[in-house]
Amino acid sequence: MGKYVFGVDVGGTTVKLGFFDAAGELLDKWEIPTRTENNGEKILPDIAASIKEKMEEKAVDKDAVIGVGVGAPGPIDAAGTVYGAVNLGWGTFSISDTLSGLLGMTVKAGNDANVAALGEMWKGGGQGCKDMVAVTLGTGVGGGIIVNGGMLTGARGGGGEIGHIHMEDTETEACGCGNKGCLEEYASATGVVRLAKRALQATEEASVLREKPVEKISAKTVFDAVKAGDALAIKIAEQFGEYLGKGLAMIASVTNPEMFVIGGGVSKAGEVLFEYIRPQFEKYVFRGCKDVKFALATLGNDAGIYGAAKLVLS
Amino acid sequence: MGKYVFGVDVGGTTVKLGFFDAAGELLDKWEIPTRTENNGEKILPDIAASIKEKMEEKAVDKDAVIGVGVGAPGPIDAAGTVYGAVNLGWGTFSISDTLSGLLGMTVKAGNDANVAALGEMWKGGGQGCKDMVAVTLGTGVGGGIIVNGGMLTGARGGGGEIGHIHMEDTETEACGCGNKGCLEEYASATGVVRLAKRALQATEEASVLREKPVEKISAKTVFDAVKAGDALAIKIAEQFGEYLGKGLAMIASVTNPEMFVIGGGVSKAGEVLFEYIRPQFEKYVFRGCKDVKFALATLGNDAGIYGAAKLVLS
Repeated sequence: MGKYVFGVDVGGTTVKLGFFDAAGELLDKWEIPTRTENNGEKILPDIAASIKEKMEEKAVDKDAVIGVGVGAPGPIDAAGTVYGAVNLGWGTFSISDTLSGLLGMTVKAGNDANVAALGEMWKGGGQGCKDMVAVTLGTGVGGGIIVNGGMLTGARGGGGEIGHIHMEDTETEACGCGNKGCLEEYASATGVVRLAKRALQATEEASVLREKPVEKISAKTVFDAVKAGDALAIKIAEQFGEYLGKGLAMIASVTNPEMFVIGGGVSKAGEVLFEYIRPQFEKYVFRGCKDVKFALATLGNDAGIYGAAKLVLS
Repeated sequence: MGKYVFGVDVGGTTVKLGFFDAAGELLDKWEIPTRTENNGEKILPDIAASIKEKMEEKAVDKDAVIGVGVGAPGPIDAAGTVYGAVNLGWGTFSISDTLSGLLGMTVKAGNDANVAALGEMWKGGGQGCKDMVAVTLGTGVGGGIIVNGGMLTGARGGGGEIGHIHMEDTETEACGCGNKGCLEEYASATGVVRLAKRALQATEEASVLREKPVEKISAKTVFDAVKAGDALAIKIAEQFGEYLGKGLAMIASVTNPEMFVIGGGVSKAGEVLFEYIRPQFEKYVFRGCKDVKFALATLGNDAGIYGAAKLVLS
């Protein structure tokens, strides 16, 4: 019986790797560059080589390894097939079979946001939950839905794409996905900036946000101004909360989670976010699904390697 | 090893029961009244007695029965605990433990809409799917979400409550749930009638729908008029399709199903519905989740007993 597991989080510029014991203790972590040239053909061989090197360093042989979990940025189905990952240059192929062939070990794979959600459930902000939604408010809005302890992967690995729920019929700017009015256009870091710029243009109202050039406004400056009591910043936070609270209400009405775990850059503002999200959430959610806790993600950039490790142990 | 299974669908006025072999062939079905008096305390004993009677009639002994599955109208968690079922008079208790105690057999239970979805996946319109959403357009809008072959139950059995997704900020009439602007207010049978009445009031446009008193309008008369080419009815169908297509797009972006299976009274209009739902669905869905089939439910009122049987066999 194996005693160790590797968790791998493939990003567009670096691959994060973690070496865990079966109880989920992180024994070592490190990074290697992501070589995306030639359709990313080097990525999995590089990962295999790095894992073999670590096993040699730790004097761990193959029988002692339960398996390798992989999270990657693209739609990945329950069998470990990726259906194209633009940032990595990947087309459609089986990550599980390919990496398993290189290592001679069990390999499981999933979408990076879904895998990170699994990590937060296992060792992060969602500990103790079996039904949970992780929401990542970064450049975009990512999501991962945990149902009865496992990832909601969907038919083609598209489960949990909560950033692209349609929220606003009147939107004129297109989202990165091509649609208009997606949740991501208001609740991501760039979305908060969009709301801020529009609010600053719409009125002459005094605000600390006017003290710097408009291109310097970030989600952080907005929420710092909120904490300082700036009235305009508070209006922006209310808009953000209206969109995100309403979006999470839709998700809760469909999936009935115990908890939302909020991570990503915007979440660095801290629990003040919940003051703007929760009232709107409660206004719009179906009453049978109202009893939901809100928590902050705690694993940061390590959520992916934790979740990938858990994928093998589940 | 057991060879048979019972599937039970508890409704507000009758309980439907099915006797199946393990392959899912329905060998017999029958109904008993639902006695809701005294907080519905007779319902499970009545079911137990009816099952015992049927076993005697069929000369089937307990060892030959794999178990009993139950669907009921309320939030029911994965362990078979119901958290109140208003239509039955039930409070919070374990359906599984109670009925298992009465019969000495394995009992599993789930929300009736979720269980019916499982039935449609197993033997109905969703055969071959592992990721599917069943949508019931009846008096309300019900839903059941199948994820990787199993029901999405949620933390407290509230999974799949798609009728109460918030769709319309400008709505002034309250939904039965207390919120305003729920999907159910536009896409149910009563919702179609609401849209029709509003359309008739808003204009003087000629329509076959004006030939009868307004209280005679039903979803059926609206879709019959659509099929006859009535311009106003077609506008009503377009509004219906806008709400439902947009709502299903949200659900697909979150759960990435292979198929939507549409049932309930409104679905008797047939595939013409899809002409109004699909374009709106495609307009609003995240592109990675666009590849979804639409099909009609085929089991009708038997979906519940099929799904309940499958619950035991899963």
